[in-house]
Amino acid sequence: MGKPIDLRGMQDYQNRQKRESPHVPKDLMRYDLLAEEALRGVVRAAVVRAAEDGLPGSHHFYITFRTRFPGVHIDEQLLEKYPEEITIVLEHQFWDLASLDDAFEVTLSFGGAPKYIKVPYAAVTSFHDPAVGFGLKFNMDGVRTNEDAGPAAQAAATGQQAGDGAVAGEVVSLDAFRRK
Amino acid sequence: MGKPIDLRGMQDYQNRQKRESPHVPKDLMRYDLLAEEALRGVVRAAVVRAAEDGLPGSHHFYITFRTRFPGVHIDEQLLEKYPEEITIVLEHQFWDLASLDDAFEVTLSFGGAPKYIKVPYAAVTSFHDPAVGFGLKFNMDGVRTNEDAGPAAQAAATGQQAGDGAVAGEVVSLDAFRRK
Repeated sequence: MGKPIDLRGMQDYQNRQKRESPHVPKDLMRYDLLAEEALRGVVRAAVVRAAEDGLPGSHHFYITFRTRFPGVHIDEQLLEKYPEEITIVLEHQFWDLASLDDAFEVTLSFGGAPKYIKVPYAAVTSFHDPAVGFGLKFNMDGVRTNEDAGPAAQAAATGQQAGDGAVAGEVVSLDAFRRK
Repeated sequence: MGKPIDLRGMQDYQNRQKRESPHVPKDLMRYDLLAEEALRGVVRAAVVRAAEDGLPGSHHFYITFRTRFPGVHIDEQLLEKYPEEITIVLEHQFWDLASLDDAFEVTLSFGGAPKYIKVPYAAVTSFHDPAVGFGLKFNMDGVRTNEDAGPAAQAAATGQQAGDGAVAGEVVSLDAFRRK
């Protein structure tokens, strides 16, 4: 097992930024957004691996994405049922998983009916692999500035749903990733 | 200021993996390496930004890289002086910074003499922006397995240097990124 990547510096940086004290210099580089953008690459790499070689061992993915994000292809019925976010599970019942440059596509069973979906990686709000408790959550505030973060954007990040077969029954949050 | 990216799930995952207890399932996906690889994108994005628009505010970069990594272009004298790693500072005295796909190039002043260097992003072992205390450290164990991590690889990660003008006088580690 390799040494885990050392994120202490990043965590310290985040804790300081969270305090927003006048003594903390404003981050003009927006490292938070750069890191978030970069870590979407982990989701992509995981999907690529699963598409090429299948899921190793007991690994499986919970992927939450915004259903109305530009570029999402999703069945009208699903969109009606999940107008903001949906959580899909890639474990047993999925077919034709493929990763394109900026999106992945897969066919999943919803209530017994196979449905094709296409998800831009930029639409993903969280990724979770319960086998090892690995998770990432994306805040999706990359496109808004300090000023224009309104209630609508907040709502989009918290709105949620549940479902059948291929859909997780609860909001996937990083808190849930912690093993008791 | 946007909400910082939530890395708790990743940190918990790392803590569990560190324990290496028999009850912790082995990570066959190697999320640690996937995340490390992805976060190199932050270094690249920061360099691209600095190359295109200059360094904003008081931001500046300490970048440590392995001098003998394949693809590194570095003056013979510097290589002799820093046979394993060197830390460069991009703050005032640098010219012609440019980011290519997989590497960046820059001219720095070493003891008054301008020297051209080219650094593949894969050669970078740490990145630090003291202005906001943001840092990333890369373990560079992506190419070795559990079995072949020998003393040589370990030594490469700890060997170090100091210097003049463009070179930091101490090992940059994430611990140092913490503000007292």
